[in-house]
Amino acid sequence: MGDGRIKEFIDQVQRFLKEEQVITEREGMSHFCYDATEIRFMPDVVLLPYTTEEVSRIMKIAYGMDLPVTPQGGRTGLSGGALPVRGGIVLSLLRMNRILEIDRKNLQIVVEPGVVAADLQEALKGHNLFFPPDPSSTVESTLGGNVAENAGYTRAVKYGVTRDYVLGLEAVLPDGEIINVGGRTVKNVTGYDLVSLLVGSEGTLAVVTKIICKVLPKPAFRRTCISYLDDLSAAADLVVAIFQGGILPSAIECMDNMSINCVADYLTRTELLRREAAVLVLIEVDGTHQGAVDAEAQRILNLCNGVPGVIESKLAENDDQAEQLWRIRRETLPALKAKGKDHLEADVVVPRYRLPFLMGAIKEAEAGKTVKVATFGHAGDGNLHVTIQYRKRNFAELEEANELLGEIYRKAVDMDGKLTGEHGVGITAKDYMKIQMTPGEIALMKRIKQAFDPKGLLNPEKIFPDEDE
Amino acid sequence: MGDGRIKEFIDQVQRFLKEEQVITEREGMSHFCYDATEIRFMPDVVLLPYTTEEVSRIMKIAYGMDLPVTPQGGRTGLSGGALPVRGGIVLSLLRMNRILEIDRKNLQIVVEPGVVAADLQEALKGHNLFFPPDPSSTVESTLGGNVAENAGYTRAVKYGVTRDYVLGLEAVLPDGEIINVGGRTVKNVTGYDLVSLLVGSEGTLAVVTKIICKVLPKPAFRRTCISYLDDLSAAADLVVAIFQGGILPSAIECMDNMSINCVADYLTRTELLRREAAVLVLIEVDGTHQGAVDAEAQRILNLCNGVPGVIESKLAENDDQAEQLWRIRRETLPALKAKGKDHLEADVVVPRYRLPFLMGAIKEAEAGKTVKVATFGHAGDGNLHVTIQYRKRNFAELEEANELLGEIYRKAVDMDGKLTGEHGVGITAKDYMKIQMTPGEIALMKRIKQAFDPKGLLNPEKIFPDEDE
Repeated sequence: MGDGRIKEFIDQVQRFLKEEQVITEREGMSHFCYDATEIRFMPDVVLLPYTTEEVSRIMKIAYGMDLPVTPQGGRTGLSGGALPVRGGIVLSLLRMNRILEIDRKNLQIVVEPGVVAADLQEALKGHNLFFPPDPSSTVESTLGGNVAENAGYTRAVKYGVTRDYVLGLEAVLPDGEIINVGGRTVKNVTGYDLVSLLVGSEGTLAVVTKIICKVLPKPAFRRTCISYLDDLSAAADLVVAIFQGGILPSAIECMDNMSINCVADYLTRTELLRREAAVLVLIEVDGTHQGAVDAEAQRILNLCNGVPGVIESKLAENDDQAEQLWRIRRETLPALKAKGKDHLEADVVVPRYRLPFLMGAIKEAEAGKTVKVATFGHAGDGNLHVTIQYRKRNFAELEEANELLGEIYRKAVDMDGKLTGEHGVGITAKDYMKIQMTPGEIALMKRIKQAFDPKGLLNPEKIFPDEDE
Repeated sequence: MGDGRIKEFIDQVQRFLKEEQVITEREGMSHFCYDATEIRFMPDVVLLPYTTEEVSRIMKIAYGMDLPVTPQGGRTGLSGGALPVRGGIVLSLLRMNRILEIDRKNLQIVVEPGVVAADLQEALKGHNLFFPPDPSSTVESTLGGNVAENAGYTRAVKYGVTRDYVLGLEAVLPDGEIINVGGRTVKNVTGYDLVSLLVGSEGTLAVVTKIICKVLPKPAFRRTCISYLDDLSAAADLVVAIFQGGILPSAIECMDNMSINCVADYLTRTELLRREAAVLVLIEVDGTHQGAVDAEAQRILNLCNGVPGVIESKLAENDDQAEQLWRIRRETLPALKAKGKDHLEADVVVPRYRLPFLMGAIKEAEAGKTVKVATFGHAGDGNLHVTIQYRKRNFAELEEANELLGEIYRKAVDMDGKLTGEHGVGITAKDYMKIQMTPGEIALMKRIKQAFDPKGLLNPEKIFPDEDE
């Protein structure tokens, strides 16, 4: 898009933005051209607004000139949702990073989209509060990005996902109009639920400029339990037994044998790892009453030990040991990446009970192939992260990897599952949308996109499969 | 709409519907012309489909002939959402009332929209499960209606509203196309969240024909506490103190002095009532650990007794006494209606801490008027039900009542509140939408309506204020 329109656009925004808010040098822009997928697209210009009014003015001018705009947060996304695929304008919200209010009386916060999730947790800690959808592994992720992708993370099984906490949004429509949807009430049925619609819309409907969220008092007590099993179906039964026992854990995570071994290769302290296990299940309970939390932890340990095929189960005895157990899970993705191969990632989700069977089916599909697959994820939610390790430059492996990815998506959908549980469709899963949805359902979503963005300028090329396919 | 088109429409649907599924007699139709608002609109024909395919065929024919269709459940709504304002077709879903599946492994149910909420609870009881958004007071409400209005009820403060439990929907678009949105996974970010959009859309976007919901294991223990206070601001402080103490009650309900006295006049056992109190606060905690539940109940009782202006606080000692306390709250609306006056109802919602102050402001607004106002509701959610008692045939009272209603809506919005927390906009609140939303925000919602229903035939005249206003 190196044409005169961009030059004219930059001229216009420079009238109200400072020099440091407008980046046009290639080197400066290179910091904004990638995300955690490691795919790259160069924009024509990067803008860093400080206020909603600046965002509105920018959008109005871009809209008038038919220029594509891609909003961007911490670029920790795993589906390419923040990449400027068509070039044009990257609108980075990183400078809009103020925590505007912590309302202790109503247990609400008001933040700008560029607030980093880890900073928010830190600020809430002082008030003994917490924001449950907490991206412990991605310290740079922003609240705006979490809203755009409806981030989940490990505690979703008990506490729900980002959408469950967002009460209200201020947002700028593609034509520059500022809207407020929802607000400061925990219930609201006045008209359509545009808050839920904007959350998880991957920045394709509006640019979020202010976020009102619920927060919760921090539970005082927490216990963590780990169980190594030699059989995937035993893991399925274990997870079901916990829920049927009336226990709602704050996390139930799982890792397959390959993930366990990658982490064992990566960490220095490995005495809590059991390399021979088919699957590891990590369970956490929390609450405000120590006796209740201890009793639940003990019941979980008993359930773990009663599962056929259990290798070892153990309760963390103190915070340090719990932290060690959590490190195993948290370092999984870094450990996989440390293997130095290229990666394809999927984020499929199935009904909870079926997740271990999906892990098994993926293992079967991998058999006899050169490429390797590691799976790990949120067993309590049925949400599985799949990492295919291959070498991009080896054409046979590239082909195998892509074939396997398609097979995994189809297997998940066959098990009543969905393409993505928390990473979003972005550009990495959009070609597979037709596996899950009918043309009529995709067309309906496109009409909703048009209701917000009739010119199709906001975060283009995302979610929807290409027309000509 | 007594024209030839209706005759032609009936001819066409009679080709695939049985005689008992098509009601055209005035007397038969009179059972489908009202809801809990007691407002009446006569349809031209009432249809009672048994299957999704029948719904689809009906919709296709009606769409082709430009005939309005109003979907209907148990007609327990309080905003007129199920009334055929423009005549035409009433599509009653009462015959689609099968519980299709109770999936104990994944803690999910699949039901048809005509399933009565009370019947569902009964069926779940045998599996030791429950569906939290439970309309205890309205035994005839259907799941389809609860989805359409995003029903909340007393346990929303801890367990959330209907939207928080719906995972997937099968629905028929106005033109007859059948779509499936969401599904059987607890997480899903594949495309826009059309499940959340349809829930609470008051039957204006699509006709829901199948509902997939989460259910939960029934908590084994429950304690109920009542507190009578002589001061509304003390109630505000009490509610905040409970949350700040890290307690998440399964209900916090409140009733003003007039509601208390109406119930005292209505019930036969009144020994637990204190007529002199300015406000009653009813608090319930539940859980799976008896010690934890008892400890929370005791902490709540201590907090109640520590509030300045407390008249009396007490923990129910057994289930029978808890049931007696809950009767006070549940019989409030029947008790108010038993006064024999006409009613105007509002369902405003404000940030939690402000609710008692809204109760006070409404009391002030009532002063010096002939009409009387009772307020009661969900203190934990900030959701207040307001009943204005007046005589419709007395023109001065009618005028006073309407004036007061407008004033209450404005007061709520001034306190960062919303017009409706759980009853929906329907026809009763639509003239007040402009108090809460900008023209641009209303226009955006209308464009979403058009994305689903370009001809504006599905449940017309609801939610949106009249154009010419």
